[in-house]
Amino acid sequence: MYKFVMPEVIFGSGSIYQAGECCKRLGARHVLVVTDRGVMDAGWTDPVLESCRKAGLAATLFHEVSVNPTDVEAAACAETYKESGCDAIIAVGGGSAIDSGKAAAALVANGGHIRDYEGVDRILSPLPPLVMVPTTAGSGSEVSQFSVIVDSVRQKKMTIVSKSLVPDIAVIDPDVLATKSARLTATTGLDVITHAIESFVSIAATPMTDVQAKNALALAARFLRPSVASKYNKEAKEKMAMASLQAGLAFSNAILGAAHAMSHTIGGRFPFLHGDINAVLLPHVMEFNLIACPEKFREVALLMGENVTRLSDREAGEKAIQSVKKLAVDIGAPLTLAEMGFHASAIPEISEIALTDACMITNPRDISAAEVAALLTRALA
Amino acid sequence: MYKFVMPEVIFGSGSIYQAGECCKRLGARHVLVVTDRGVMDAGWTDPVLESCRKAGLAATLFHEVSVNPTDVEAAACAETYKESGCDAIIAVGGGSAIDSGKAAAALVANGGHIRDYEGVDRILSPLPPLVMVPTTAGSGSEVSQFSVIVDSVRQKKMTIVSKSLVPDIAVIDPDVLATKSARLTATTGLDVITHAIESFVSIAATPMTDVQAKNALALAARFLRPSVASKYNKEAKEKMAMASLQAGLAFSNAILGAAHAMSHTIGGRFPFLHGDINAVLLPHVMEFNLIACPEKFREVALLMGENVTRLSDREAGEKAIQSVKKLAVDIGAPLTLAEMGFHASAIPEISEIALTDACMITNPRDISAAEVAALLTRALA
Repeated sequence: MYKFVMPEVIFGSGSIYQAGECCKRLGARHVLVVTDRGVMDAGWTDPVLESCRKAGLAATLFHEVSVNPTDVEAAACAETYKESGCDAIIAVGGGSAIDSGKAAAALVANGGHIRDYEGVDRILSPLPPLVMVPTTAGSGSEVSQFSVIVDSVRQKKMTIVSKSLVPDIAVIDPDVLATKSARLTATTGLDVITHAIESFVSIAATPMTDVQAKNALALAARFLRPSVASKYNKEAKEKMAMASLQAGLAFSNAILGAAHAMSHTIGGRFPFLHGDINAVLLPHVMEFNLIACPEKFREVALLMGENVTRLSDREAGEKAIQSVKKLAVDIGAPLTLAEMGFHASAIPEISEIALTDACMITNPRDISAAEVAALLTRALA
Repeated sequence: MYKFVMPEVIFGSGSIYQAGECCKRLGARHVLVVTDRGVMDAGWTDPVLESCRKAGLAATLFHEVSVNPTDVEAAACAETYKESGCDAIIAVGGGSAIDSGKAAAALVANGGHIRDYEGVDRILSPLPPLVMVPTTAGSGSEVSQFSVIVDSVRQKKMTIVSKSLVPDIAVIDPDVLATKSARLTATTGLDVITHAIESFVSIAATPMTDVQAKNALALAARFLRPSVASKYNKEAKEKMAMASLQAGLAFSNAILGAAHAMSHTIGGRFPFLHGDINAVLLPHVMEFNLIACPEKFREVALLMGENVTRLSDREAGEKAIQSVKKLAVDIGAPLTLAEMGFHASAIPEISEIALTDACMITNPRDISAAEVAALLTRALA
């Protein structure tokens, strides 16, 4: 027996102009718009604010969100919400803005510190209306029951999982992807690939999540390279937006695995991009997981567009790993943790903490701290 | 730009015992359980009532639902809800019980006659919590924004489409399918096939609905025959439950076509089974629609398991039509309207009324009353 939940989705060119109307439909009168400087500079906060005005809603802006958003920022965001008398939240941005919006919503409805909600199903009171406008084709947070927030004291990314965190409406406008740099397109796209593969091999995968994961992987494998290649390839942007959405639906309901558990831990300590860490870790984690479900890794190879005729499942799985590595090379992603500035000295502590991340529970192969450390060592250089 | 909405889904063996708890989670205290005699006799109302007791909820039973449920029944159901002081609805049954539960919910929250809500988006006030427990692997109504109710004055099935009609939670337990007769399994399964094909070729189809429609069709094409063949084939039951769910998600968001528009009209006048009418009409409608999107009908053939190598799209589409006919023959469905008791004299009036059904709008080929009449004549014998 399993569950599948998702928000209402509005998808398509120009949908960003619907954000305000969506909030109004949910009963809002004064919206907190959560975003970051990069999104503001790219000009995507304006159409959201304009849509609020057109819907007759008051709007207050909160833009103090960093790349790996923290408990302190979430608390400040919640404070702004309360001080301004807001009754709904629109987040416009990547996973950072959306996860901050969710965390602030959890705080205004439930009080306390965001640390109180770390883990699974600890948010009890329902949240205010949440409308999410993703701008990166990466995090999938616009449809997921996840929020990942840095605990600034423990320097650790907390994974908060709760059905309450599923937004009410996800407004996905592929046009916003045209302002992304190739670098950002690559790193967020590799996050999509990691979501799709980890949720597909997750021990919590179901027929409903498999459908989404497989479609997401096939789309991303085909359209990530052309999307990195050109800002103006509209088809590639639209397909990557759909891949991100479907991968989000998959991992929201099937959870993830060791790559994300380790990536959250590293991202809590070092200012690296989430997608970069995933890109480096993913092939190593796939190698480790291969014996758990070679037949699933064969499907991964197929979905990546590889020819696996006459190969055993094991050999096909190895081809899937090579395929992921080739993709990272093609789009200029970092290939080792060392080149990102990660040092071997951090490995023992990172390994211990990674074991406690909620994503580790659904990894298809049981893993020890020593095995995590071995994977990190292999990923180092 | 398009929308996609679906309820929370709970899927799997034994999930029927969660129905009460689901209602409690939505804030209910006194549930109206809507069902019909056949479902009660099969014993599936009991676990739902028991789950309400276990969740500490009061429960009132309403079982006056007929095969093609009417406005009069819906009004009586709403009356029972109000008289008993209910605050939530669980429907357990096929499309008849679920559509009645939805119609009653619309009435208790919005007043008036159910006729007032015929067409698209006419229900304004939000409905009470709705938990749907389908028992047929057919209607898909447990996840859809549709309710189809007979107007007893006009002797016409009204198609009511509104996002408010999407239930809160669909509880899908494949175990309940073990008590269905082969006859009922066949007719409801052909409804699933019709949902999948009509939503796939609908002019409102989107990448999100295509994913669901294609999976539904592939599953139903493979597992409907074995499901009809044996009550005890658990795998076939589970796959048909999933096919029904996915076809429901597809047509709820992409709407249907001429087969359903005509089937609703005939079903409002004659006491035929909905799936039977669809089964007879579908190949004729496919033939008519073939020129609108032959490449999509090629995919239909592929999903039905046909070999279309070296065939043109048009030829492959013809193979799809043959494949649907073969399936109907194999599982003993009626093949003509005449054998069901339909007379040519009804054709002119049925043709006019069918044109006004909401499902006609998304048919991939424009259609006139004369063309509907020609299709009905061809389907007659």
